[in-house]
Amino acid sequence: MTSQTEQLRELIQSKSIVKVCGAYDAMSAKLIEMNGFDAIWAGSFAISATHAVPDASILTMTEFFNSAKNMVDACQIPVLADCDTGYGGPSNVRHLVKKYESAGIAGISIEDKMFPKKNSLLKDSKQEILPEKDFVSKILAAKDSKKDPNFLVIARTEALILNLGMKEAIRRANAFEKAGADAIIIHSKKETPDEVLEFADTWGGSVPLIVIPTTFSSVTLDELISHKIKFVMYANQTLRAAHASISQLLKQMINSKSIDDINQKLSSMEDIFELQKMYDIEDKEEEIEQQYKNLGY
Amino acid sequence: MTSQTEQLRELIQSKSIVKVCGAYDAMSAKLIEMNGFDAIWAGSFAISATHAVPDASILTMTEFFNSAKNMVDACQIPVLADCDTGYGGPSNVRHLVKKYESAGIAGISIEDKMFPKKNSLLKDSKQEILPEKDFVSKILAAKDSKKDPNFLVIARTEALILNLGMKEAIRRANAFEKAGADAIIIHSKKETPDEVLEFADTWGGSVPLIVIPTTFSSVTLDELISHKIKFVMYANQTLRAAHASISQLLKQMINSKSIDDINQKLSSMEDIFELQKMYDIEDKEEEIEQQYKNLGY
Amino acid sequence: MTSQTEQLRELIQSKSIVKVCGAYDAMSAKLIEMNGFDAIWAGSFAISATHAVPDASILTMTEFFNSAKNMVDACQIPVLADCDTGYGGPSNVRHLVKKYESAGIAGISIEDKMFPKKNSLLKDSKQEILPEKDFVSKILAAKDSKKDPNFLVIARTEALILNLGMKEAIRRANAFEKAGADAIIIHSKKETPDEVLEFADTWGGSVPLIVIPTTFSSVTLDELISHKIKFVMYANQTLRAAHASISQLLKQMINSKSIDDINQKLSSMEDIFELQKMYDIEDKEEEIEQQYKNLGY
Amino acid sequence: MTSQTEQLRELIQSKSIVKVCGAYDAMSAKLIEMNGFDAIWAGSFAISATHAVPDASILTMTEFFNSAKNMVDACQIPVLADCDTGYGGPSNVRHLVKKYESAGIAGISIEDKMFPKKNSLLKDSKQEILPEKDFVSKILAAKDSKKDPNFLVIARTEALILNLGMKEAIRRANAFEKAGADAIIIHSKKETPDEVLEFADTWGGSVPLIVIPTTFSSVTLDELISHKIKFVMYANQTLRAAHASISQLLKQMINSKSIDDINQKLSSMEDIFELQKMYDIEDKEEEIEQQYKNLGY
Repeated sequence: MTSQTEQLRELIQSKSIVKVCGAYDAMSAKLIEMNGFDAIWAGSFAISATHAVPDASILTMTEFFNSAKNMVDACQIPVLADCDTGYGGPSNVRHLVKKYESAGIAGISIEDKMFPKKNSLLKDSKQEILPEKDFVSKILAAKDSKKDPNFLVIARTEALILNLGMKEAIRRANAFEKAGADAIIIHSKKETPDEVLEFADTWGGSVPLIVIPTTFSSVTLDELISHKIKFVMYANQTLRAAHASISQLLKQMINSKSIDDINQKLSSMEDIFELQKMYDIEDKEEEIEQQYKNLGY
Repeated sequence: MTSQTEQLRELIQSKSIVKVCGAYDAMSAKLIEMNGFDAIWAGSFAISATHAVPDASILTMTEFFNSAKNMVDACQIPVLADCDTGYGGPSNVRHLVKKYESAGIAGISIEDKMFPKKNSLLKDSKQEILPEKDFVSKILAAKDSKKDPNFLVIARTEALILNLGMKEAIRRANAFEKAGADAIIIHSKKETPDEVLEFADTWGGSVPLIVIPTTFSSVTLDELISHKIKFVMYANQTLRAAHASISQLLKQMINSKSIDDINQKLSSMEDIFELQKMYDIEDKEEEIEQQYKNLGY
Repeated sequence: MTSQTEQLRELIQSKSIVKVCGAYDAMSAKLIEMNGFDAIWAGSFAISATHAVPDASILTMTEFFNSAKNMVDACQIPVLADCDTGYGGPSNVRHLVKKYESAGIAGISIEDKMFPKKNSLLKDSKQEILPEKDFVSKILAAKDSKKDPNFLVIARTEALILNLGMKEAIRRANAFEKAGADAIIIHSKKETPDEVLEFADTWGGSVPLIVIPTTFSSVTLDELISHKIKFVMYANQTLRAAHASISQLLKQMINSKSIDDINQKLSSMEDIFELQKMYDIEDKEEEIEQQYKNLGY
Repeated sequence: MTSQTEQLRELIQSKSIVKVCGAYDAMSAKLIEMNGFDAIWAGSFAISATHAVPDASILTMTEFFNSAKNMVDACQIPVLADCDTGYGGPSNVRHLVKKYESAGIAGISIEDKMFPKKNSLLKDSKQEILPEKDFVSKILAAKDSKKDPNFLVIARTEALILNLGMKEAIRRANAFEKAGADAIIIHSKKETPDEVLEFADTWGGSVPLIVIPTTFSSVTLDELISHKIKFVMYANQTLRAAHASISQLLKQMINSKSIDDINQKLSSMEDIFELQKMYDIEDKEEEIEQQYKNLGY
């Protein structure tokens, strides 16, 4: 069986664009796999939201790791873990790379904001960029700590998010690639893709470029491909669909006389049993039964 | 502020029917609270599903507890925790009651199946009832271990699920009440409510009766009230709505050129920020800033 | 029963010196309680050591919390938790105070170093002090977050550790008390107690003063009392005793023909059973047996 | 680097007796490795004791797993995990083997008692053996679930502990080997080794035999070797040494005027720093500093 990091390398080599979708737990991850995506993003925003805490370094690496590990255990496709600012300095990054890689996670992303961070799309939020040298130190530590060359160390620059200009974004992406980053996320909060497309055209780097079209959701795959963007990451749509459908369901339920009055689409119990592999347990029990009968019991 | 166990007692005294809705994580729990339900059910089926593992005692008490605790931390209304068979014998039940009660969970439910259990609605599944005496022992242990008289020890009988007949179901419910259960769940997998309504009419118990209308979803609140059923528990609808909406979203996303082409309803980033209280962090930071300015900084 | 925070207040009022001993797990905590100490210190150095990772913010709050919580569950006396730099900024401190207080921990300590921190007694280590204003912000957040007035928010200054001088140490202690700290730890790595005693004599604060005589181990209780130091914290001796005895045992075991040849003192299985309350389980089982017999089984 | 399961195979092939020592946390595990033992036993009794809870299936698989995983992360030698009764039925065993194997644990042991179990050396304790067929089912599930042929599935029979006689012990060991067990633990609570030596002489099995000389501590390595016993497991001595030394230390400390008055041997802070690799962090920081200087910063 191809390992998840080898899968990643092959995806990068063979596909015009790698489609990554964000999960918030193992069920959403499994659905992403079942629907044909290439990889799973274990994003901090979504995972924080499902814990009902702010996306502001409130959960610790332990909780984020556990969520990502649950996804790995449930799926065959690669899981990429959002590790925010790396949960500290270079020593923390070294520790996390070792921990995540040995758990079967296929890659990690760290971003060049100050710890504790806040969500990048928060309005009017005061946030600070980390000095370039300090972030380069984290990439160097990550690179030194990883064992599998196909494990992805993704460096994400928040230069555009923090309004530091295109030149600074490009300088940082170059510095991060030079320090050993295996891929770059260029993050943007603009309503149109112009900014990230300009970045893609201007930046001369050779490692894969990744975008997260949350705010510039109108961008098409063809546009991304024609600008040589290698990964598209739909970071939070599964979470937002779940939030919307549950909200709508509950609004109806609280006023209904009976569940049957509700027109919200619900999956059947059998759909869920299938995802959980409930019947595998029964099948395996029968196998065991056959086996011990063969042993003379 | 009224404690969550006091809230429970007041709900039982004042309402014709207490509406409990099942959550699978802190976000779904919070949405249940925001939409006006009386209490939250931290159900094993839903929590197992979000971990993509079978509902068959595969997750341990630790994972179920952590999920329920996350809900408690996010909400003000009572959380009732599904504790399957009690994760062992009377000593395990004693331990769990102490652990759950001290964590602010308002009640726990244990059921009279053999450990390891399987989901009650699984088709053609071989499952066994626990001898009455052994289950009574667990209730006695739970009762002895709880400190707060308002903490609910809920005994759930699977007698109807396992086709043992109405008489056995009633005998067990009586025995469980006599042993100290604070409420009874009568579980059924019939397509109509006849069975649980018959139980409610026949059983002469005085502690609150709880039903879970998953299969008999046509039952109305008025029917339940008129048969003196005190709690209705919608155990898994939020999970099934999330599963359905994510599945539908992903089917569209994998074939779309752009997120904007998708007609699936997504909540906005701001909706999620509100649930997470992202802006509280900003507000509190401003308060602190004002305070340290007052201190002369 | 007196709560653990009330116990703390009474200890402060009634005792000339409060004796706190550091634990690294629930067993060592229980032994501290059994031997008559007033309170338990859940220290980062010792807990990191038992995880065999550096005391350098490598473990997350989650692991430190779990260790402290295990101690709380095992003991009746107050547990004070070492929270390093507070695991981030004021919002993290706010979150941790809520989490620790609701778990029954009687107080937390935060220190004025930069995150990620390193152990204070490490030789030739480069470490930085946090600007006073930033640390004051954390104390303000802690104070605002705590609900129980008897819950202790302990501010620890590393000014002497980082060679910033007595004046700076005193300025900081004053600032921290003014911001709302309930107690001050003055930390020192000197071989003699002169430095902390000078601090105690010079500082005019009114909240309790705490010292940790790891390096200045010759200091006597009478000296501490006469200098109005209110708490003595033996932070790491249990860990170091365990390390020493296990090392000595293993050196013998690896070369022995038989366990009986070893002269290292071992507690008996029965000693451990007693600490674990193994026989309580048996006793409780008998009680339950009597009870269900009374019910007619 | 040789994997931990390959190490195990080589140890079995090359050594007259494999020396395994029980740890209770990562520090004790690391000390076992540093002192030359071949492998580490992550035992339930010791891990339960450090959590100050009875060794009676009170902790869940999650806690036991985390303790064993911490040992794996800290050590290079194989870790064998005590999995009690397998935490349920065949499906649970299947799940645990997958989980433990993928975490780098080199083998697991399950025993043929009823769940929830109690410690085997508890006096006058009522405990029951599991029917042979049911335990064989668990071994079949374990064997089917493991991927690495060198991963050890150890079957432990409690037949002698529960006074079922030598014949039953031998019948069970044979059945377990036939079902696929990779090694057998023959457990005994006798004060002399006669019983286990008789078993070793009588049993005709070909997989390695393991003994745990807690009560028959006088047995010598030569005796074990001459009776073709392949593994000796010192399950709980590190825990008992720690308990003894801490107890003795605390008795002195509570009555001492100063730490310096205590004659209990304490390891130095530097000893602990070395075990934790505190200085590695400093070294690595210097490496990183050199590297970013080379990059022109």
